[in-house]
Amino acid sequence: MKTIGAGIAAGLAALAASYGNGHVIAKTIESMARQPELSGQLRGTMFIGVGLIEAVPIIAIVISFLILFL
Amino acid sequence: MKTIGAGIAAGLAALAASYGNGHVIAKTIESMARQPELSGQLRGTMFIGVGLIEAVPIIAIVISFLILFL
Amino acid sequence: MKTIGAGIAAGLAALAASYGNGHVIAKTIESMARQPELSGQLRGTMFIGVGLIEAVPIIAIVISFLILFL
Amino acid sequence: MKTIGAGIAAGLAALAASYGNGHVIAKTIESMARQPELSGQLRGTMFIGVGLIEAVPIIAIVISFLILFL
Amino acid sequence: MKTIGAGIAAGLAALAASYGNGHVIAKTIESMARQPELSGQLRGTMFIGVGLIEAVPIIAIVISFLILFL
Amino acid sequence: MKTIGAGIAAGLAALAASYGNGHVIAKTIESMARQPELSGQLRGTMFIGVGLIEAVPIIAIVISFLILFL
Amino acid sequence: MKTIGAGIAAGLAALAASYGNGHVIAKTIESMARQPELSGQLRGTMFIGVGLIEAVPIIAIVISFLILFL
Amino acid sequence: MKTIGAGIAAGLAALAASYGNGHVIAKTIESMARQPELSGQLRGTMFIGVGLIEAVPIIAIVISFLILFL
Amino acid sequence: MKTIGAGIAAGLAALAASYGNGHVIAKTIESMARQPELSGQLRGTMFIGVGLIEAVPIIAIVISFLILFL
Amino acid sequence: MKTIGAGIAAGLAALAASYGNGHVIAKTIESMARQPELSGQLRGTMFIGVGLIEAVPIIAIVISFLILFL
Amino acid sequence: MKTIGAGIAAGLAALAASYGNGHVIAKTIESMARQPELSGQLRGTMFIGVGLIEAVPIIAIVISFLILFL
Amino acid sequence: MKTIGAGIAAGLAALAASYGNGHVIAKTIESMARQPELSGQLRGTMFIGVGLIEAVPIIAIVISFLILFL
Amino acid sequence: MKTIGAGIAAGLAALAASYGNGHVIAKTIESMARQPELSGQLRGTMFIGVGLIEAVPIIAIVISFLILFL
Amino acid sequence: MKTIGAGIAAGLAALAASYGNGHVIAKTIESMARQPELSGQLRGTMFIGVGLIEAVPIIAIVISFLILFL
Repeated sequence: MKTIGAGIAAGLAALAASYGNGHVIAKTIESMARQPELSGQLRGTMFIGVGLIEAVPIIAIVISFLILFL
Repeated sequence: MKTIGAGIAAGLAALAASYGNGHVIAKTIESMARQPELSGQLRGTMFIGVGLIEAVPIIAIVISFLILFL
Repeated sequence: MKTIGAGIAAGLAALAASYGNGHVIAKTIESMARQPELSGQLRGTMFIGVGLIEAVPIIAIVISFLILFL
Repeated sequence: MKTIGAGIAAGLAALAASYGNGHVIAKTIESMARQPELSGQLRGTMFIGVGLIEAVPIIAIVISFLILFL
Repeated sequence: MKTIGAGIAAGLAALAASYGNGHVIAKTIESMARQPELSGQLRGTMFIGVGLIEAVPIIAIVISFLILFL
Repeated sequence: MKTIGAGIAAGLAALAASYGNGHVIAKTIESMARQPELSGQLRGTMFIGVGLIEAVPIIAIVISFLILFL
Repeated sequence: MKTIGAGIAAGLAALAASYGNGHVIAKTIESMARQPELSGQLRGTMFIGVGLIEAVPIIAIVISFLILFL
Repeated sequence: MKTIGAGIAAGLAALAASYGNGHVIAKTIESMARQPELSGQLRGTMFIGVGLIEAVPIIAIVISFLILFL
Repeated sequence: MKTIGAGIAAGLAALAASYGNGHVIAKTIESMARQPELSGQLRGTMFIGVGLIEAVPIIAIVISFLILFL
Repeated sequence: MKTIGAGIAAGLAALAASYGNGHVIAKTIESMARQPELSGQLRGTMFIGVGLIEAVPIIAIVISFLILFL
Repeated sequence: MKTIGAGIAAGLAALAASYGNGHVIAKTIESMARQPELSGQLRGTMFIGVGLIEAVPIIAIVISFLILFL
Repeated sequence: MKTIGAGIAAGLAALAASYGNGHVIAKTIESMARQPELSGQLRGTMFIGVGLIEAVPIIAIVISFLILFL
Repeated sequence: MKTIGAGIAAGLAALAASYGNGHVIAKTIESMARQPELSGQLRGTMFIGVGLIEAVPIIAIVISFLILFL
Repeated sequence: MKTIGAGIAAGLAALAASYGNGHVIAKTIESMARQPELSGQLRGTMFIGVGLIEAVPIIAIVISFLILFL
């Protein structure tokens, strides 16, 4: 029973992080191709955004480890 | 049984935060590329928005910890 | 059995708040980029909207705590 | 068994209220940016709309409390 | 078993009313911003529509109470 | 077992009526804003349509009552 | 077991009739607003269409009654 | 067990017939509003189409009766 | 157990035939309104198409009868 | 248990064949209305396509018969 | 248990082959109507494509036979 | 139990390969009709793409055989 | 129980790889038809992309083998 | 029970990584075809993006190994 809970948490966290990051990075690349002179500023905002998005999935990964080892 | 509840809560919280943040940050990057002179104001609103969005998922993470350790 | 109920309630509440807030804040940022001179009024309406949206999910969070500790 | 029923009711109510409110408020902000001189009237209609939308979810919240404490 | 039935009925009723009302009110606000001189007539039709929409969900809420207290 | 059947029937009936009515009324308001001089005729057709749509959901509500009290 | 079968049949019949009728009536109102001089003919076709659509859902309602009382 | 099978068959048949008929009749009304001089021919094709569509759902209804009374 | 299998087969066959036929007939009516002089040829192709589509669902109906009476 | 397997196989095969054929035939009718002089060639390709599409669903139907009679 | 596995495999294979083939053949017919002089080349590519698509579903059909007769 | 696992693996593999191949081949045919002089290069890339796509589904088919015969 | 886990892992991995590869290769073919002089560079990026995408699904395939043989 | 948890985690991780990478790489190829002179910068951002996206799915793969071997 323990492993199914850990599997669901880890799988949904991976899905969540990939969906959010994929959306942001694809938008960044599209915007850089449209306005090349802004690429530094856009890439900076992208890094901040990726950091903000990955916060909660990584806590969910931590919960998944806790479920396994507790 | 305990771990499945914690897994569902943590996984859905990660999905929720990533969906909301990804939507807001992608829109911000798209708007910054269209109106570069407003980038400071847009990024400020983005930080406020991310903070407001992450409030409820983080409480859900807390509930997930409570389910595990109680 | 108790923890699954709490997990469902907390997870759906997080999903709900993030969906609603993400939609409103993204629309606000898009509108601010289109009409910069209205940004104060738009941001004010955004704060009211976020407050109105988060009312019911936070009650659902409260119910989730009640399920755990009762 | 009692807590799962309460969790489903509270979670769906939160989802419902956030979906409806998010849709209405986002539309209001978009319309205000397009026609700034109507912003008072639009915001008034928005408050009426939010009140009408939140009526049924709040009754569902009440039912959720009844399920828990009865 | 009783509480799950009540939870499903109340949750779906909340979802239904919010979906229908949110759709109608958002359309009304969009139309008011496009044709401000018709706002009285549109808002009147909106109130009639909200009343007609909420009829069946409120009966479902009544059924949910009946399930709980019978 | 009886209450789950009643809950499903009542919930789906509420969802059905709200979906159908919301679609028709939103279309009516949109059309009234486009052609204000036809608003009487459109609103009349709307009332007929709402009556026709609510026929089957209300029978489903009746079946839901029958399930509960039989 | 009997009531769940009746609930599913009645609920799906209500969903079906509302979906079909809502689609047809909304299209009729949209067409009437575009071509007001054809409104009699369109409304006539609408009544025929609603009658044809409601045939099968009403038989499903009859089956639902049969399940309950047999 | 018998009634659940009958309920699924009748409910899906109602959904099927309403979906198909609603699609065809809505398209007919839209086409009649665009080309009023063809309305006789279009309505004739519509009746043939409705007849062809309702063939299989009505056999499914017959199967549903057979499940109940056999 | 037998009736659930028959119900699923009959219901999915009805859904399949209605989806395919509804799609083809709606497209035919739309094309006839755009090119009235081709209506004979289009209607002929429509009859062939409906015949080809209904082949497999009707075999599924036969399987459903076989499940019931075998 | 045997009949549920046969029902699933026959139902999915009917759904598959109707989806594929409906898509191809609707596209053919749309193309014939746009280029009437190519109607022979298009209809020929349609017959080949329908034959190719129905190959696998008919084998699934055969498997469904095998499940029933073996 | 054996027949359910065979039914799922055969049903999904039929769905897969029909989806892929229907998509390719519909695109071919649309392209032939737009560029009639390329119809030989397009139809040749279509036959290669149909052959490549049907490879894996037919192996799945073989697995379905193996499940039944082993 | 063994056969259900094999059925799921084979069915999903067939679905996967057909979805990917159908998407690529349909795009190739559309592009060939738009730029006939590139058809050799496009068809070559298509063969490489089909080979790359079918790699993983065929391993899944192998796993399905292993499940059956091990 | 072991085989169902292996089947799910292998099936989802096949679905994942085919979805990702199909999306990338279709986009490449579309871009090559629009800008033939860049076809070498685009195809090179495509190979890198396919390699990056297939990394995780192949590890999932390895896990599926491990589940079977461990 | 252990293998199902590992299978879900590995399968969802593969789905997540492929979805995110496929979205980003397809956008990159589309942008490179539109602005060939930026291809170096776009490809660099693509590599960073793929690295950021694959972080969480690979941790989920690690959790899947841990579930199997612990």
